[in-house]
Amino acid sequence: MSGEYTRLDKDNAAVLLIDHQAGLLSLVRDFDPDTFKNNVLALADLAKYFNLPTILTTSFENGPNGPLVPELKEAFPEAPYIARPGQINAWDNEEFVAAIKATGKKQLIVAGVVTEVCVAFPALSALAEDFEVFVVTDASGTFNAVTRDAAWDRMSAAGAQLMSWFAVACELHRDWRNDVEGLGALFSNHIPDYRNLIASYTALNSGQ
Amino acid sequence: MSGEYTRLDKDNAAVLLIDHQAGLLSLVRDFDPDTFKNNVLALADLAKYFNLPTILTTSFENGPNGPLVPELKEAFPEAPYIARPGQINAWDNEEFVAAIKATGKKQLIVAGVVTEVCVAFPALSALAEDFEVFVVTDASGTFNAVTRDAAWDRMSAAGAQLMSWFAVACELHRDWRNDVEGLGALFSNHIPDYRNLIASYTALNSGQ
Amino acid sequence: MSGEYTRLDKDNAAVLLIDHQAGLLSLVRDFDPDTFKNNVLALADLAKYFNLPTILTTSFENGPNGPLVPELKEAFPEAPYIARPGQINAWDNEEFVAAIKATGKKQLIVAGVVTEVCVAFPALSALAEDFEVFVVTDASGTFNAVTRDAAWDRMSAAGAQLMSWFAVACELHRDWRNDVEGLGALFSNHIPDYRNLIASYTALNSGQ
Amino acid sequence: MSGEYTRLDKDNAAVLLIDHQAGLLSLVRDFDPDTFKNNVLALADLAKYFNLPTILTTSFENGPNGPLVPELKEAFPEAPYIARPGQINAWDNEEFVAAIKATGKKQLIVAGVVTEVCVAFPALSALAEDFEVFVVTDASGTFNAVTRDAAWDRMSAAGAQLMSWFAVACELHRDWRNDVEGLGALFSNHIPDYRNLIASYTALNSGQ
Amino acid sequence: MSGEYTRLDKDNAAVLLIDHQAGLLSLVRDFDPDTFKNNVLALADLAKYFNLPTILTTSFENGPNGPLVPELKEAFPEAPYIARPGQINAWDNEEFVAAIKATGKKQLIVAGVVTEVCVAFPALSALAEDFEVFVVTDASGTFNAVTRDAAWDRMSAAGAQLMSWFAVACELHRDWRNDVEGLGALFSNHIPDYRNLIASYTALNSGQ
Amino acid sequence: MSGEYTRLDKDNAAVLLIDHQAGLLSLVRDFDPDTFKNNVLALADLAKYFNLPTILTTSFENGPNGPLVPELKEAFPEAPYIARPGQINAWDNEEFVAAIKATGKKQLIVAGVVTEVCVAFPALSALAEDFEVFVVTDASGTFNAVTRDAAWDRMSAAGAQLMSWFAVACELHRDWRNDVEGLGALFSNHIPDYRNLIASYTALNSGQ
Amino acid sequence: MSGEYTRLDKDNAAVLLIDHQAGLLSLVRDFDPDTFKNNVLALADLAKYFNLPTILTTSFENGPNGPLVPELKEAFPEAPYIARPGQINAWDNEEFVAAIKATGKKQLIVAGVVTEVCVAFPALSALAEDFEVFVVTDASGTFNAVTRDAAWDRMSAAGAQLMSWFAVACELHRDWRNDVEGLGALFSNHIPDYRNLIASYTALNSGQ
Amino acid sequence: MSGEYTRLDKDNAAVLLIDHQAGLLSLVRDFDPDTFKNNVLALADLAKYFNLPTILTTSFENGPNGPLVPELKEAFPEAPYIARPGQINAWDNEEFVAAIKATGKKQLIVAGVVTEVCVAFPALSALAEDFEVFVVTDASGTFNAVTRDAAWDRMSAAGAQLMSWFAVACELHRDWRNDVEGLGALFSNHIPDYRNLIASYTALNSGQ
Repeated sequence: MSGEYTRLDKDNAAVLLIDHQAGLLSLVRDFDPDTFKNNVLALADLAKYFNLPTILTTSFENGPNGPLVPELKEAFPEAPYIARPGQINAWDNEEFVAAIKATGKKQLIVAGVVTEVCVAFPALSALAEDFEVFVVTDASGTFNAVTRDAAWDRMSAAGAQLMSWFAVACELHRDWRNDVEGLGALFSNHIPDYRNLIASYTALNSGQ
Repeated sequence: MSGEYTRLDKDNAAVLLIDHQAGLLSLVRDFDPDTFKNNVLALADLAKYFNLPTILTTSFENGPNGPLVPELKEAFPEAPYIARPGQINAWDNEEFVAAIKATGKKQLIVAGVVTEVCVAFPALSALAEDFEVFVVTDASGTFNAVTRDAAWDRMSAAGAQLMSWFAVACELHRDWRNDVEGLGALFSNHIPDYRNLIASYTALNSGQ
Repeated sequence: MSGEYTRLDKDNAAVLLIDHQAGLLSLVRDFDPDTFKNNVLALADLAKYFNLPTILTTSFENGPNGPLVPELKEAFPEAPYIARPGQINAWDNEEFVAAIKATGKKQLIVAGVVTEVCVAFPALSALAEDFEVFVVTDASGTFNAVTRDAAWDRMSAAGAQLMSWFAVACELHRDWRNDVEGLGALFSNHIPDYRNLIASYTALNSGQ
Repeated sequence: MSGEYTRLDKDNAAVLLIDHQAGLLSLVRDFDPDTFKNNVLALADLAKYFNLPTILTTSFENGPNGPLVPELKEAFPEAPYIARPGQINAWDNEEFVAAIKATGKKQLIVAGVVTEVCVAFPALSALAEDFEVFVVTDASGTFNAVTRDAAWDRMSAAGAQLMSWFAVACELHRDWRNDVEGLGALFSNHIPDYRNLIASYTALNSGQ
Repeated sequence: MSGEYTRLDKDNAAVLLIDHQAGLLSLVRDFDPDTFKNNVLALADLAKYFNLPTILTTSFENGPNGPLVPELKEAFPEAPYIARPGQINAWDNEEFVAAIKATGKKQLIVAGVVTEVCVAFPALSALAEDFEVFVVTDASGTFNAVTRDAAWDRMSAAGAQLMSWFAVACELHRDWRNDVEGLGALFSNHIPDYRNLIASYTALNSGQ
Repeated sequence: MSGEYTRLDKDNAAVLLIDHQAGLLSLVRDFDPDTFKNNVLALADLAKYFNLPTILTTSFENGPNGPLVPELKEAFPEAPYIARPGQINAWDNEEFVAAIKATGKKQLIVAGVVTEVCVAFPALSALAEDFEVFVVTDASGTFNAVTRDAAWDRMSAAGAQLMSWFAVACELHRDWRNDVEGLGALFSNHIPDYRNLIASYTALNSGQ
Repeated sequence: MSGEYTRLDKDNAAVLLIDHQAGLLSLVRDFDPDTFKNNVLALADLAKYFNLPTILTTSFENGPNGPLVPELKEAFPEAPYIARPGQINAWDNEEFVAAIKATGKKQLIVAGVVTEVCVAFPALSALAEDFEVFVVTDASGTFNAVTRDAAWDRMSAAGAQLMSWFAVACELHRDWRNDVEGLGALFSNHIPDYRNLIASYTALNSGQ
Repeated sequence: MSGEYTRLDKDNAAVLLIDHQAGLLSLVRDFDPDTFKNNVLALADLAKYFNLPTILTTSFENGPNGPLVPELKEAFPEAPYIARPGQINAWDNEEFVAAIKATGKKQLIVAGVVTEVCVAFPALSALAEDFEVFVVTDASGTFNAVTRDAAWDRMSAAGAQLMSWFAVACELHRDWRNDVEGLGALFSNHIPDYRNLIASYTALNSGQ
């Protein structure tokens, strides 16, 4: 069953952030709100840190679904931003797919709300077109753990790889020596336990 | 591992509601009763909304298993209704299979009580006859999460796709523009958080 | 430590529904949304069933907190409805307290969102003025179980009695013979397991 | 805050089993069904073992609430058995209170379904009449842990003592030497881990 | 991915009960003891009910692992009983494999303690020899849910089918009409909720 | 049991932040790290917002316990900061108590790590000297929920009031009209669900 | 409600270890076995560290309950050791009470198996004789969290103080300066997170 | 789907312990600290017991990640120890891979911190080079169960086998008769329930 291990490659990967909208976020209950907010912003920060082409899309943002979370809009002022007129599966929106293909990347890092629809549908569509799909499980949210587990099973069976934002960052970075400070800052900003390790380390060193 | 993504198609799908009986429901403990009732009625409403051929079946409804939940009977007054004389696997009942085949549909959306028997057995039978099977995981209930997980594993390994009623509705609908009001009403009636979003949105708009 | 057992008395009780607003409900995460919606509506139904004077109040309903849940507004068209201009503790609003005192009742059945503020503050104020306070724990929601537990402890220590909507209904009704059908309908509409018992019972009886 | 420790005394205690009916048991979801059944039968067995006067009562057993669990009926063929015509609080039934007072006991060991009504109401009534009340928490069941916790808080604040069936048995027995075999059998029949200890012990001893 | 659905066949199935020993059971913590005991005895009862050849085996039963649970020994007085002198994987014991092969059955229903060793090892060995393997997940226990999940993953990946004892019974029985009373008794004895359904049903019918 | 309700009063309250040190935080496991960090910073922000005198203290910060979390140090550059030379109960440090008494406040809002020691000990000491003590339960952390529950019970029994940071903020603020923007910003910065409500509200209003 | 805060005093405290027997430990399921073992040994180590008089007692240790855990026997070779001939409540054993009174201490630190019997009964007896009782909640175990919660409620209501072994150690030690190394070793041996802090600290310091 | 069952073979297996560092361990929250420490040390003990070649590696151990846990360093004084200068995936370190290949073993038993990076990355790399990979799930830790589950899914899909340390020990040992004492000691030292079984057994036997 063993085969090639095709890793995430920062020169061949794009990030898709799908429907992280202020209204829809009230549906997300498989994560604590503080944790989920942190995970989504960590994913945004890593996309920026690695200069990955990033594509934003929303569904009906003038209606009850609400606007894209402001932090994401601010993080990617130049990014393609597709306010879909109605397609539920973002992949059904030609502009969205065109934006992806324009990046020339074959690895798609996907996160969104809610997992079994806004993430799973485009993930399955992308797999069918031979993209490699990496689902950022902890930056994708849904109603509860039962619907999440079903969505994971469906995507995994179709060939998607399930990852955390931390694993994505590490697989892209490969070697700390590429930039110790940069990666350390990313972790310190989004992993309180790591920040504490750094604080203790720094205090000890500076104190001597 | 990637392949075709054959989506649920409202012109090619039928719904099977298996053994949602008043007595048997007392066995369901992997969902909170309020949640489970809501999920089952949401699935019924979506079946009606999309005009999907729907088939009802029960097991021994004059005995302790109890009658079909009245709401389901009322929702589908014209639907084939097979009170099985004894077959545990509904697929062993010729009338049931004939009703399915009479719809001419190849995609079966299945839910029932209890998951590892009333859902899993016909799901495995249908897969063996080359139907596509979509299990509505949150409208199917059983004794506890352990037996549910085992049932999911068995069905998934055989090729069934695990979904939530919400994912089923979205994959069938494809595009909000097909009917914003209709889908919105379905969600509002069965997702309290979504109803609240609409209430806030409407109040704000009407107030100005 | 034993003393008098002063029961809820339907001739001496009023219901306070505090800040069940469409926006604020997105903060409630110590209950599943389906369950919480059902509990709140059950409390509303019992208030109507027992003809208890009921007082509604909201906080900033034209802002992000959102409007009162429409079902509650419709359930009590004649009820005093105090849209507080800013007081966080509803008891700080003179109109609210006046409405309560106008009922002449000394037993207050209180529920609201969020528990440690909108319920606890007026509960503590009412206790200090020698009302008897009955908190409907399952129709009151908050951020998580930790903050709920702290709020319960604070209210209980001050003399509030913690109840469920079901216990409130039963303590008010006293004897099924006062109205079997009415109480049965209340339970059937809000307790799926009870509805199933009735469905099975009715089917068996009617079938013979 | 320290004071006298009045223990359960087998010469001064009676057992009240309230509304353990086949239908109502489907409402109990704060315990796994296997565990709850075992706990209730353990309490019955200990009542018989210690020859405690035991009083059974039911509510509407010809309706959807269903009959008393047959095992309890068989366990206490001679016990007072009050089928209440409608009173929700069993203490409102004169026959029930008379049966209790006829025992001459001042310590009441109470269990029932559901906790916040069928247990809490008579417990509070009994405390108000200066009985000592010991609630068997694990032989009393209700909708979920939230409503249970509220019920416990209310009863505890009024002076009830919360116990498990095992603690009740131990406090009544006082000293193993009063009957090693009898108490051992009670535990072996209702505590699988204890049964296993005995099985290993016996096997080892008999093997030598 | 769909293929044949080879069901459990009562004429082609044997049951393997591996290391349900009084000492080892103290290691089982992924199930409540009451529930686990009930599940194991339910599996034993179904094996007897369907007259399935059943094979018992133990590991070091004269040492700390303790004797086979007495109920199992009594249930199968004629069954092959292999007290393994040391092999951890029962399949490494020739006598055990010979007993299985002597049954002539190709479907093995397996349960044991602990899941990742006493169940998984022989399951993997049997699959390698082209037996069909059905793991009774709820009659197999281990240290905690984490080790259970890993064991399930390993067995499932190798082709084992994960089931509950209830699903096994239903798949073997096929049709209630083969024996309503017998199957009903099996369920009534091991599923308290089902027993309650029957009790209510019987009471209602006999009362009229 | 009812009595006076003495509310938190912003003119009579001081905040004690005890041992939130980078090393000790690795011991906190009764909260998710993202949530706990957010709660502690929310408490710091509210202390600043209400201009409450705030006192910081640490234990052995040059050793493995690590330095005070930098964010707290920065938030209160002028605050009394007592690096205790060894006293475990901060109240045993004269400088700490003097700093408290110098504020002239009688209401103490206390949080720290770990709950049963760094919070409970000074809380009990302060109560013994007739301070009113308000424990910020969600900005205090410890090893697990079991030790937390025991600590809560001990403090509550001694007269401490258990609150969340949100309840503290609301009880201090009293009326939104005192400063809508300020309180809204505090909530928006620390309650993602509330921030989303504001984002949706603002977008809707600005879009029109 | 505030009053004196009488702290644990190492010159006035004794430790009671009740029925930590190899067989009975298989009944303990409200703690993970690794955690519980660690907590009990931590309590033993602190008793030795502070030279507290310690009293051991067992119930029927030649029968299925099994011997005292060997580590405890070895830890206290000189301690009074009362193998009770049958009394369930250790306080009913005159030798046990005499041993306690012989210490001349008025503060009793109590832990045992199972919580609601072996801990609660002597705790209630000791309180009735005006001892101060400190229950070490995490070194006391029982069947499940439900029975534990009931036991805690009963003991707390009678005046017992609920603590963790860590809180006991800290309250006895008062000031790190009394012996930094000793207390640090106790924590390092029983709190892995603390051990890690020390390891990191030491490595950093020694590396420079 | 059945195929060969290639078991762990003590003559063909090596152990990789990756990044169990004092600082990084503070990130591990999917296991209780006591349990995780025990599992890691159990894995170390079994590696030594079976004389498996063992390779240690760390990441940045002079920085905040902290030193290798001292117990592991002491356990394997002669083992290859690769302090990686920056590679996140240990397999990217040539020295590490060379050390593995120098063992000549084709079965790799892998554990580390954190699971989705330090374990998953080298596991996927090793599978791609046709090693057999056995992940020790309970000696590998990460941020929470969600990220663990995703990591397991990714590794399992690529062909890794998920095991517990106990299963690894049993599959390596094959037959108790190879060394009863040795394996018994390993289990007694790391499984408290097993230690208790042995203590009871020994006491009973020695007492006669």
